[in-house]
Amino acid sequence: MTPKHKIINDPVYDGFLNIDDPLILQLIDHPYLQRLRRIKQLGMADLVYPGAVHSRFSHSLGALNLMCRALDVLRSKGIEISDDECRAAKAAILLHDIGHGPGSHTLENIIVHVPHETVTQLLMQHINRQLGGQLDTAIAIFNNQYHKHFLHQLVSSQLDMDRLDYLSRDSYFTGVREGIVGTDRIIYMLNVKDDELVVDEKGIYSVEQFLISRRLMYWQVYMHKTVVAAEIMLRNFFQRAIQLGHAFTTHSGLGFFINAETTIDQRAMQADESLLHRFAQLDDNDLYQCLKESHDDPILDLIRQALLGRRLLSVTFSDQPFTQSQVEQQRNRLATIQGSRDATRGIDPQTLAHYLVGTGELRNRSYDFNDHEIKVLRKDGTCLPIAQVSDQLDRHFLQKTVTKHYLFFPKTI
Amino acid sequence: MTPKHKIINDPVYDGFLNIDDPLILQLIDHPYLQRLRRIKQLGMADLVYPGAVHSRFSHSLGALNLMCRALDVLRSKGIEISDDECRAAKAAILLHDIGHGPGSHTLENIIVHVPHETVTQLLMQHINRQLGGQLDTAIAIFNNQYHKHFLHQLVSSQLDMDRLDYLSRDSYFTGVREGIVGTDRIIYMLNVKDDELVVDEKGIYSVEQFLISRRLMYWQVYMHKTVVAAEIMLRNFFQRAIQLGHAFTTHSGLGFFINAETTIDQRAMQADESLLHRFAQLDDNDLYQCLKESHDDPILDLIRQALLGRRLLSVTFSDQPFTQSQVEQQRNRLATIQGSRDATRGIDPQTLAHYLVGTGELRNRSYDFNDHEIKVLRKDGTCLPIAQVSDQLDRHFLQKTVTKHYLFFPKTI
Amino acid sequence: MTPKHKIINDPVYDGFLNIDDPLILQLIDHPYLQRLRRIKQLGMADLVYPGAVHSRFSHSLGALNLMCRALDVLRSKGIEISDDECRAAKAAILLHDIGHGPGSHTLENIIVHVPHETVTQLLMQHINRQLGGQLDTAIAIFNNQYHKHFLHQLVSSQLDMDRLDYLSRDSYFTGVREGIVGTDRIIYMLNVKDDELVVDEKGIYSVEQFLISRRLMYWQVYMHKTVVAAEIMLRNFFQRAIQLGHAFTTHSGLGFFINAETTIDQRAMQADESLLHRFAQLDDNDLYQCLKESHDDPILDLIRQALLGRRLLSVTFSDQPFTQSQVEQQRNRLATIQGSRDATRGIDPQTLAHYLVGTGELRNRSYDFNDHEIKVLRKDGTCLPIAQVSDQLDRHFLQKTVTKHYLFFPKTI
Amino acid sequence: MTPKHKIINDPVYDGFLNIDDPLILQLIDHPYLQRLRRIKQLGMADLVYPGAVHSRFSHSLGALNLMCRALDVLRSKGIEISDDECRAAKAAILLHDIGHGPGSHTLENIIVHVPHETVTQLLMQHINRQLGGQLDTAIAIFNNQYHKHFLHQLVSSQLDMDRLDYLSRDSYFTGVREGIVGTDRIIYMLNVKDDELVVDEKGIYSVEQFLISRRLMYWQVYMHKTVVAAEIMLRNFFQRAIQLGHAFTTHSGLGFFINAETTIDQRAMQADESLLHRFAQLDDNDLYQCLKESHDDPILDLIRQALLGRRLLSVTFSDQPFTQSQVEQQRNRLATIQGSRDATRGIDPQTLAHYLVGTGELRNRSYDFNDHEIKVLRKDGTCLPIAQVSDQLDRHFLQKTVTKHYLFFPKTI
Repeated sequence: MTPKHKIINDPVYDGFLNIDDPLILQLIDHPYLQRLRRIKQLGMADLVYPGAVHSRFSHSLGALNLMCRALDVLRSKGIEISDDECRAAKAAILLHDIGHGPGSHTLENIIVHVPHETVTQLLMQHINRQLGGQLDTAIAIFNNQYHKHFLHQLVSSQLDMDRLDYLSRDSYFTGVREGIVGTDRIIYMLNVKDDELVVDEKGIYSVEQFLISRRLMYWQVYMHKTVVAAEIMLRNFFQRAIQLGHAFTTHSGLGFFINAETTIDQRAMQADESLLHRFAQLDDNDLYQCLKESHDDPILDLIRQALLGRRLLSVTFSDQPFTQSQVEQQRNRLATIQGSRDATRGIDPQTLAHYLVGTGELRNRSYDFNDHEIKVLRKDGTCLPIAQVSDQLDRHFLQKTVTKHYLFFPKTI
Repeated sequence: MTPKHKIINDPVYDGFLNIDDPLILQLIDHPYLQRLRRIKQLGMADLVYPGAVHSRFSHSLGALNLMCRALDVLRSKGIEISDDECRAAKAAILLHDIGHGPGSHTLENIIVHVPHETVTQLLMQHINRQLGGQLDTAIAIFNNQYHKHFLHQLVSSQLDMDRLDYLSRDSYFTGVREGIVGTDRIIYMLNVKDDELVVDEKGIYSVEQFLISRRLMYWQVYMHKTVVAAEIMLRNFFQRAIQLGHAFTTHSGLGFFINAETTIDQRAMQADESLLHRFAQLDDNDLYQCLKESHDDPILDLIRQALLGRRLLSVTFSDQPFTQSQVEQQRNRLATIQGSRDATRGIDPQTLAHYLVGTGELRNRSYDFNDHEIKVLRKDGTCLPIAQVSDQLDRHFLQKTVTKHYLFFPKTI
Repeated sequence: MTPKHKIINDPVYDGFLNIDDPLILQLIDHPYLQRLRRIKQLGMADLVYPGAVHSRFSHSLGALNLMCRALDVLRSKGIEISDDECRAAKAAILLHDIGHGPGSHTLENIIVHVPHETVTQLLMQHINRQLGGQLDTAIAIFNNQYHKHFLHQLVSSQLDMDRLDYLSRDSYFTGVREGIVGTDRIIYMLNVKDDELVVDEKGIYSVEQFLISRRLMYWQVYMHKTVVAAEIMLRNFFQRAIQLGHAFTTHSGLGFFINAETTIDQRAMQADESLLHRFAQLDDNDLYQCLKESHDDPILDLIRQALLGRRLLSVTFSDQPFTQSQVEQQRNRLATIQGSRDATRGIDPQTLAHYLVGTGELRNRSYDFNDHEIKVLRKDGTCLPIAQVSDQLDRHFLQKTVTKHYLFFPKTI
Repeated sequence: MTPKHKIINDPVYDGFLNIDDPLILQLIDHPYLQRLRRIKQLGMADLVYPGAVHSRFSHSLGALNLMCRALDVLRSKGIEISDDECRAAKAAILLHDIGHGPGSHTLENIIVHVPHETVTQLLMQHINRQLGGQLDTAIAIFNNQYHKHFLHQLVSSQLDMDRLDYLSRDSYFTGVREGIVGTDRIIYMLNVKDDELVVDEKGIYSVEQFLISRRLMYWQVYMHKTVVAAEIMLRNFFQRAIQLGHAFTTHSGLGFFINAETTIDQRAMQADESLLHRFAQLDDNDLYQCLKESHDDPILDLIRQALLGRRLLSVTFSDQPFTQSQVEQQRNRLATIQGSRDATRGIDPQTLAHYLVGTGELRNRSYDFNDHEIKVLRKDGTCLPIAQVSDQLDRHFLQKTVTKHYLFFPKTI
């Protein structure tokens, strides 16, 4: 029996999310959405920012909250949106992350070879069947197949409710003030022109600050080098397990996927729906359970204990790619340390180095000229891309891609 | 290799915790403290307040933060506290929750028959041995055996850094503004008189509000009836498992304790230190793993799925004890529902009712006249208990105990 | 030409006030409301809390903001409120403080012998005539003559939008966290039962905290003893000026009223409307101008310079009335100091003491049993006064009146 | 008698400013600093952001607060700063704005022809004489004549405590979140290298965001077009008064300066110190008093009533200079309106247009390559300008100057 009315506290917006639509309430109560309570929004970032243990569930509700406000604003500006379309847009944003698995982005293509967006699609379709087609419009909006394209842009674009929520939320829970954004102002300034989501001219500074904050949060939080270190370790732990074959004692939970003999890709998942439902049972507890199980393999054991005890790899960033000799130097250093320790003496140095030393590359561009550009609606009724209107964020600035090369290696083992 | 200097963001205090003491850094890095990252501060309260997934680890750091500030304030007022005593007081507050197990208070006396305070003692002693006695003073302070008693009061009293932190923290993460407290002001007003922690007269209103906020948070958050419902379910799930004997397939993790044939009490834990270390591996992931494992027993399965999907028992509060006939009425209702469902038809109605229908009682008094009373230092140098000085919080108010009786039962199953 | 749509930033509610009603926009633009921009909400309290220079104008907009939200909430709960009634309730709250003069409460019965509530009435009627009767309903609501009494209660009762706003606002600008109140929650919990504004049972803790915060803010901010000292000085400055007769060189501004030969009471103000309009030109600048003008009278000069330079009287509080001998002692002390200074040697000691030494009394009761009590709407549909429902705030607590006696005297002159 | 210890609430930093240095306490109590309580930090910006009535006094205390923290941080990093130098740096920042007059920047070169920095100098020297030379070091630091140049940089540079405070403060009181800056983090990251104030590499993102926030606040708040409109009106009001000669009835207050027959420049002020002291009596009340006095001149009367009632000029911005014909068009429009109104019919249209129609230009560059550049201290001990280190804020971005042309004209009169 679903309650008719729900008020949920959200510390981020210092107010309440007020829900009375029966469909939305039903979706919130769905076990596959409830599951997101147990998946952290920011993966391993709480190892750097201890407050950042907030869940994808709270993010989904937050994005829903912003969607409700945005729809109200647009309607108050005379944009026609029917009650059904409102409900569908809300459902779409509420479910937009439902396909995420444990460890969020870090374990993509490790647990299954299906991108989380595809899993989201499959789960939405499954729930739609359960609900007798009540999500048809929501799915059309989500897939940009609905004739009012601006509704899709509220769900997914360079200025969508997803991004607006996560910046504020991640800022709130990490305590990194750089991410604070004038969410309210941006939402008040949203408008629709020629079926496209645009921003009233008065909101231009807020949008600029939003783009910049995103860029800063990327390096300050999401790609903080200690976070990168932890994610490499997590990824390599599971890659080692996959490489070993039957690494986990149980075939339940995450063990099932990691131990699986064949790659599970989209085709496999669609052929056997039980795979989808098994996946939709997983959450971060399964991930930690794999880390908490002791292993015969010393490499697995070394990584998992280091992760649990927060003894992380070192990561250094550089504008230039690291040379082979820099990598070799760290491999040699590792081999020396390894030889001096009982626990690691027996391991093949090459294999150990494979998991503990390496390089990689991170790229960030906070704006995408190939995607729908953010457009500004001027007082005279014309629309222009923000890159043309903004004093500060000109094309030079916006198209700049920052690339950082990194080298990871153990301080000690 | 321990870094020499650490800055940690804490969103609650909108600033940083700055740590450079090598002992404190070592304690933070200890795996048994790191473990608290994986134990939620508020147990099941995030089922009502989705933001409230903050960890005991962040609380421990927060309490340390307040301790640092309080020691600075006291020293600036001329109270003599040596560097060693500062370090010890910081170590004591940092470790004050180290004995908590999964599910925090809810599973006390279920996993082991040892109160978490005792586990804290045992773990402190263990770490002290590892560190060659560096925690001697910290432990003395913790146990109120140190000659400067006010140091103990900073760690544990009616106005300690523990309570000051958790009120602010729980308020921040739940979004319940009622818990916001003038922490800074209270700390600025701390003083010591005749070896007792006291509050300067100018801080009296802040202390009053602190006492009242605690009382309100108790009912609004900690004992919110939906939280109570979830905790009853969690407790009953494990009690059912214990009653069944070998409920869990693995003997690792929490399964070891729940499946154990004999009660593990303090004596047992001291006799066999491996029990302590096993306990000190547990965290909330173990708890959820138990909930995620499917069971042959339909009662276990029913409760665990309800918890995971957030289909919680109903709880009603009353000033009066519930009558036997009110309980019977709910039992009968349950039996009727039960009979109409395939999944539950086979279960013995009495047994099912034992786990799903019942009564209990909650009591709260925000002030304890038997404990050291909070004393106010007046301008003339005299000290008086707050109950005598406060305009508002007189004896009548402070000694009032609120008792609520509750009845729990399923809306449906 | 009135703009059609206005968005105003309000830092207190971390969002915007969005106004599109032409009548409300017209009222905001009225010079008599704009005047409130130049009257501080908290009189002299910024001498203690430097941030607290916020204006009655911002409070009026804040209360309007809360009124908009409250009306939305009530309508969403099915309470019938027409668009006209909404507009009227908004107009009433927006104008509720329009009759305040410079120095707010401190100079009541000094500038004119008309309470500010009466001036508000007169100004509302004047504006209503200007607007051709568009405020008829607003005035009826304000005066509790409208048949839907709950609308009046939103404007003026023990839980009105005025109080809800000023607590949050004063807390925000002073930085005194004790006043932070769950405004959003209280507003969400408002309801109407039998034409009476009530609070849903779930909001009871927030209302309790609201009552307590008000009580604390009263002593911590509004009646802080340094604020009391400054207000005594301000009052005595003008009383001295009145006593002297033509103290001010100009007859414009405040000088007109202070120099006036006859008392201006309600009768006089109604007989000669120009008095009302003169009063409605005054703001805090007039008050400070009086303080900045140099005077022949040494007492006036002494007080005004002390106020401008923040050299304030001492105030001590006591539960007991001060004795005549305590007062005498301070008078004698003053006489001694006075004799040793050139600037004050010539003043009659008795007269000086009349303005610089004295006693008084403050009383606070945060709840009024004679006023409409705050009622709680329980789940079963019944309504009970909060004093009967609350665990904490029983009759004993709520009816308690705190009385403080004070003695003021100069530290030095 | 100066109190020994002072705690002042500052809502911006959510904590307290704790002062116990007798010199600093004496400076705070000085009437010329107390005067800053009555000068708004943001001039007319509260006409757009009603909360923004905060004073230069609160800004001065806030900058002092940040200075205290910054000095603590630097000392904790081993930078040698003596107690005397600390006191001097604190005194310098506390007094840095003491030379501001009413209306802040808007009335510079109108009231006197002396820049506020020069007035600050003169007042510091005056107070230094009063205090027997106790400010010698503070003045040397202020003037960058002290051998430890980094102390001057804390007071005045592209990353000084002045800017850090005002961004946070203006953001807090306006409610414009775009200005929120990681002040705490920036201060923690300050360091000194080769006698130069630098930022540790880890703080680079916070500095970037600081530069960007300043740029955004410039256009969103400081040069908001409605604020620009109000400032033009204020300026033109006083220019008209100066042009008319003896516009004000009194020669006290601001009237003295505006009515003065000869220009008061630095030479004049130094020749006759009484001019300095007269200036140091002025505050915003004097400004409003001039606006509240009625005038024979219809232009003065028109502007002052419009300002008091917030009927402001229109301002439009353009990337291109406005053409003469655009200006003429507005002049003609004005002449038409003017002719239709009794009150303005008699005024010479040319003269009226001189005060109500015109153009101007605003420029902003948030970074100055000619000033000491902000340097980043890298882990390897080298220092580089931020323009070389930053991924985002490259030379192209930082050196960009934004110029906006504006046209002002009345909507109506």
